[in-house]
Amino acid sequence: MDAAPRIAIDAMGGDSGPAAMIAGIARALRRDSALRFLVFGDERVIAPELSKHSAIGDAVEIHHTPEAIAATEKPSQAIRRARTTSMGMAIAAVKDGLADAAVSGGNTGALMAMSKLALRTMPGIDRPALAALLPTMGDTDVVMLDLGANTECDAQNLVQFAVMGAAYARCGLKIDKPRVRLLNIGTEELKGTDELKEAAALLREADYLPLSFDGFTEGDQLSRGNIDVVVTDGFSGNIALKTAEGTARFVTDLLRRAFKSSLRSKAGFALSRPALNLLKVHLDPNNHNGAVFLGLNGLVVKSHGGASPKGVANAIRVADRMVRNDITRKIGEDLDDFRAHAFNHEAAE
Amino acid sequence: MDAAPRIAIDAMGGDSGPAAMIAGIARALRRDSALRFLVFGDERVIAPELSKHSAIGDAVEIHHTPEAIAATEKPSQAIRRARTTSMGMAIAAVKDGLADAAVSGGNTGALMAMSKLALRTMPGIDRPALAALLPTMGDTDVVMLDLGANTECDAQNLVQFAVMGAAYARCGLKIDKPRVRLLNIGTEELKGTDELKEAAALLREADYLPLSFDGFTEGDQLSRGNIDVVVTDGFSGNIALKTAEGTARFVTDLLRRAFKSSLRSKAGFALSRPALNLLKVHLDPNNHNGAVFLGLNGLVVKSHGGASPKGVANAIRVADRMVRNDITRKIGEDLDDFRAHAFNHEAAE
Repeated sequence: MDAAPRIAIDAMGGDSGPAAMIAGIARALRRDSALRFLVFGDERVIAPELSKHSAIGDAVEIHHTPEAIAATEKPSQAIRRARTTSMGMAIAAVKDGLADAAVSGGNTGALMAMSKLALRTMPGIDRPALAALLPTMGDTDVVMLDLGANTECDAQNLVQFAVMGAAYARCGLKIDKPRVRLLNIGTEELKGTDELKEAAALLREADYLPLSFDGFTEGDQLSRGNIDVVVTDGFSGNIALKTAEGTARFVTDLLRRAFKSSLRSKAGFALSRPALNLLKVHLDPNNHNGAVFLGLNGLVVKSHGGASPKGVANAIRVADRMVRNDITRKIGEDLDDFRAHAFNHEAAE
Repeated sequence: MDAAPRIAIDAMGGDSGPAAMIAGIARALRRDSALRFLVFGDERVIAPELSKHSAIGDAVEIHHTPEAIAATEKPSQAIRRARTTSMGMAIAAVKDGLADAAVSGGNTGALMAMSKLALRTMPGIDRPALAALLPTMGDTDVVMLDLGANTECDAQNLVQFAVMGAAYARCGLKIDKPRVRLLNIGTEELKGTDELKEAAALLREADYLPLSFDGFTEGDQLSRGNIDVVVTDGFSGNIALKTAEGTARFVTDLLRRAFKSSLRSKAGFALSRPALNLLKVHLDPNNHNGAVFLGLNGLVVKSHGGASPKGVANAIRVADRMVRNDITRKIGEDLDDFRAHAFNHEAAE
């Protein structure tokens, strides 16, 4: 696509109101001034925030939406308010072709349910999945999905996640043939659930797909940098993601405590500070903010509720990149290939 | 119990043969010279190792066992060799009352299968679980189970794991009424699988048990120090444990890279070194080596295949502590209580 992406923003979704969302827009515009935004939310609080950022100019259009989805609201309640809430209207803008993607920092369950209902799953996809980038020791991040959209998954779901995750790696990480692995509790073929074994068998056969299926991997390999896409059910994926976040925080907390433990180590910290700041940047969750709902007829990006303006700008960048790379079309093509081959295979048997 | 524990050692199970196991025994004896060991394995390689450690004296009895279970051997094959292998004979020593616990660094699947077959599960336990201690920011470690013995678990399994994990925390961490939580992908009552919701309901009712059930927890809370026992199915537990190990290694690798990045940060590292060594000790997996199979009529401790002598000594200490605290009897008493209450409850309805 040639025109710059138009991004719909749910300004009311984050933990601290629209301030971080609007500051994030301003930050995104400083990097790419061609972007255009449709901002949904309460005009009375949004307008003063907008006036704080000269970079915004006329790149933003406010769509006054008096209601907002609460952080604790059940998905089943939220979907009834699709036409009156900032979250619902941001998604509707994608559905109606007014925007190319929506970004929200609100309630994940509600965002998922409303997106699914409004945008519907793509042909060939049974369930959409939540995908994000995680930092590694290697040159690029790793794509991981599902991160919590689907508590239980069958083999077909996992294969579809692999296809979508590989498309994400091609669009987002510029890797032609991503190395894909299934998360398991061992790497031998006999390990794990029946769903995993069946998904592995299907992926091993699907050698025409633009991905390299490398078998199983374990939790300790996620950040090694030798995998491009890690596929898992939403329960295990959420456990792994949050355990990784918690452990990174644990180690950096211990490190902080160690540096404070003596005058000598305080001096050591002062000397090492520039180098340690690089570590901090590498681990800052704001630099990896923006999880994508893949598998819908339209793009929706979940920003962390507590994301900083930098984090919001990063979620916008994820949306921007996916739109410009036309990820929805790429997933569709790969799925068509997969289904055509599976059909021929069945017919030949 | 009054007499010092007798520990059966599978000397052939570790990645590097008996050297680390024997050095670990010597280390354990330096801490507690009353311990006694029955060492199973190839006499020709064990005897020279024993002679390297003067601390060992007559605390060790060699039981020549010519065969060993290979690291890649399937559990179904291993169980046929129970009477001819060092792993099988170490477990048999527990069964026959010759030893109070067995320690092995061998193949986890084989160790589990052989232990289950020889020792059988306790009355009231459907499936044994693998439990270990993980480091936290708090004053004590956290007990986590199951770590991979059971890929899928129902609500009853999870409740039994909670009872066993709480007994472990009472014996191993000296906490009278351990705070127990179920690992989930959210803390609201409606989150997660049906098995988790049902287990939570059962634990909420079982307020006569010597534990405090605090509901669900998420992966990012494991190392915060505000939980004593984390209960989960073996699939999620294994994913969480390995992700935590991998992330800790990731952050420390980044840290090492940061310190090496300039002359200035190298100097900072030299100054901070004593403090950073404390961090290293806190995170060294050898200090947390020794996972216990709970729920069998006898104690079996799994040492990491690559454990150092310090790690082996730690696994022996875990076995020692569990034997001295009579954990098997404690679990049995709690299970009797649970069943008596459940029975009265049913009868009253």
